[in-house]
Amino acid sequence: MSLVMIVVKKFGGTSLGSLERIEAVADRVREDIQTKGESPILVASAMSGETNRLISLAHQVAPHDRSPAYDMLLASGEQVSISLLAMALHKRGVKARPLLAFQLGIMTDSLPSKATIQSIRTTQMQDLVNEGIVPVVAGFQGIDPQENITTLGRGGSDTTAVAIAAALGNEVCEIYTDVPAIFTADPRLVPNAQPLKYVYFDEMMEMASLGSKVLHARSVELASKFNVKIHLRSTFEKKEGTWVVPLGDNMEKPVVTAVTHDPNTSVFKLYPTPDTSEFLASLFSQLAEQGVVVDIITQSQNPEGQRLAFSVHSDDTEQAQAIIKSTVGAATNIELINDMAKVSVVGVGMQNQFGVAARFFAAMAKADTPIRLVTTSDIKISAVIEKANLEKAANVLHAEFKLEGLHS
Amino acid sequence: MSLVMIVVKKFGGTSLGSLERIEAVADRVREDIQTKGESPILVASAMSGETNRLISLAHQVAPHDRSPAYDMLLASGEQVSISLLAMALHKRGVKARPLLAFQLGIMTDSLPSKATIQSIRTTQMQDLVNEGIVPVVAGFQGIDPQENITTLGRGGSDTTAVAIAAALGNEVCEIYTDVPAIFTADPRLVPNAQPLKYVYFDEMMEMASLGSKVLHARSVELASKFNVKIHLRSTFEKKEGTWVVPLGDNMEKPVVTAVTHDPNTSVFKLYPTPDTSEFLASLFSQLAEQGVVVDIITQSQNPEGQRLAFSVHSDDTEQAQAIIKSTVGAATNIELINDMAKVSVVGVGMQNQFGVAARFFAAMAKADTPIRLVTTSDIKISAVIEKANLEKAANVLHAEFKLEGLHS
Repeated sequence: MSLVMIVVKKFGGTSLGSLERIEAVADRVREDIQTKGESPILVASAMSGETNRLISLAHQVAPHDRSPAYDMLLASGEQVSISLLAMALHKRGVKARPLLAFQLGIMTDSLPSKATIQSIRTTQMQDLVNEGIVPVVAGFQGIDPQENITTLGRGGSDTTAVAIAAALGNEVCEIYTDVPAIFTADPRLVPNAQPLKYVYFDEMMEMASLGSKVLHARSVELASKFNVKIHLRSTFEKKEGTWVVPLGDNMEKPVVTAVTHDPNTSVFKLYPTPDTSEFLASLFSQLAEQGVVVDIITQSQNPEGQRLAFSVHSDDTEQAQAIIKSTVGAATNIELINDMAKVSVVGVGMQNQFGVAARFFAAMAKADTPIRLVTTSDIKISAVIEKANLEKAANVLHAEFKLEGLHS
Repeated sequence: MSLVMIVVKKFGGTSLGSLERIEAVADRVREDIQTKGESPILVASAMSGETNRLISLAHQVAPHDRSPAYDMLLASGEQVSISLLAMALHKRGVKARPLLAFQLGIMTDSLPSKATIQSIRTTQMQDLVNEGIVPVVAGFQGIDPQENITTLGRGGSDTTAVAIAAALGNEVCEIYTDVPAIFTADPRLVPNAQPLKYVYFDEMMEMASLGSKVLHARSVELASKFNVKIHLRSTFEKKEGTWVVPLGDNMEKPVVTAVTHDPNTSVFKLYPTPDTSEFLASLFSQLAEQGVVVDIITQSQNPEGQRLAFSVHSDDTEQAQAIIKSTVGAATNIELINDMAKVSVVGVGMQNQFGVAARFFAAMAKADTPIRLVTTSDIKISAVIEKANLEKAANVLHAEFKLEGLHS
């Protein structure tokens, strides 16, 4: 039995956005080692701006290249940040070792730019910790079975951190970021948004997939699966942030916990389309295979034929259009509507309440905001609207569900 | 027997210094594939300026850290350039695969920042070539037995390229750079310096270790050992450059082939020092273990005791001073003289000529340039002088040995 208290701590790009900030993170890590007796394992993102710089270089050379070269390029950002963070720790007398995915055996599948972690070797990290050396792990990257470098998608370092905590059997994973907590809505959009003390895994997964950028969706999925609590907190403050936790019986459950939005949504309308499930299966499997995430789908039978509409993230619009064009016949019109947004309410309390959808639609009507596509689940209602209406809609929903007074 | 003609081509940082230049290199590679039927293996340096940027980051965080973190940081530059070069090739319909040291099994020892390649696995490169895929290999980096990333020292990508050519049993390694040839002297210092058509391995090794930056010294050593001719040529022109070749019997051998210089030299003077070989062995082995290359050493017996003087590269001055201080006793004075330079003449023809040293000293006297330290070998004479006298000395030596009229 190991007597050391291993704590996995992930630091995001903003937390490491300059040499001064890297030094500050090193100070905090050393202090936690000395005052709390922790044995940390650090996971780092690239310095903020670096991944965008690398994407821009790739875009200038070959905008559609998603070969292993693209992932290798992007993965270089974390190599820089972990090296510098390890050096900043050395300078403070803290032994540290930067580790890349290949050195640590972070194995993934081969899906370009959106790979999924399959396994992590923990023996090396544990050996280092037992020797008093802090592992400083490159987030966001993995190695596929052919030894290609893969990346996990934007925000993927969260997933690296949770996967390491899970592989070690830890109860908690700390995620340090540039916001002090998860809020009832994005405070930049909804000025009286409130910090949340707890969010349930199911809610957080919905929020992440609905546009909240605070945590990578896959990281919450992993945390839920392996029962790892995520403590999301600020790098720049000492106070606690938000705990992302399993559903507890004796916790209060407001009807709606948060309003989430995604301003980068595009809608495709296709008509007429073949009235066969083979057509839908073929179209959506091709989109999925190439990594385009299709969000809300609606289908309707009209006099002139079958109509199909669905939303995708704006980043995937070009790629989706190419796939659609090569799949549907010449008889099908393809209409692309840009500048759309998605606004959603999320809360496990919705499961036990009637009339939540009615309140949602009434609020949107009050805000004079037409809904283009809508989808619901047990714990969320989500609508695609025009981007111009987003701020108004988010504030009206936040007020309707009384989130400004939520004490959680 | 393979019927493909594998050619190893190394491109330096200036050749890859911008996206436009990377695209130009990709154009040239594609053209050589199509017109010459070559199957290239490319070796790339970091984009020019990138390694300096990374060194500067490291220097700001922890100037003396030479742990594996430092080498990992520096190695990220090549990861970016090979990814972008591979993408530029894809765009031109040329299949390419960027490869890092760990993927290729470029095994080195563990000497920080100055590692030596021990072995290279060639099966993977050959398989790729047989599939019509161009391997784009990260120069400068390797992997030590503990799977740490190592680097080979500035200019180390030359060595990567020659090592790959040697491992493949190739006769030639092409090194593309920003100068059209090796010259009889640095044209920036000696205006009427002439391009050389041939240089012998022995000469080139001396020139590289005496300050010529055109080729990495270790790359020439490897080329000589494995009989790989180096064709150094310009990335920006089609014409041939300089061939670095084994000594041939029927070639003309001028007395002196080139004047070489190194403007970054420092001299340490120690006195009095213990009159024992144990002292010298201890001092110089400690310097060597920490990677400080000691160049010219002189020792003299004076009335007040043993005097020792030696030169090191200016970059190593601080580190050398720390090592010297911790090795010699308090009774020994340590004098450090900065702003020195080294000027040398090199030529295999010196072996068969008398009086070359006399001509060298006479020329220096004519240039009114005092010599601080001097060393000679069969094929070179080398002197440490004040940096202020360097340009004058180099031009006088170039004229004395009639290099402006050398037709080679």
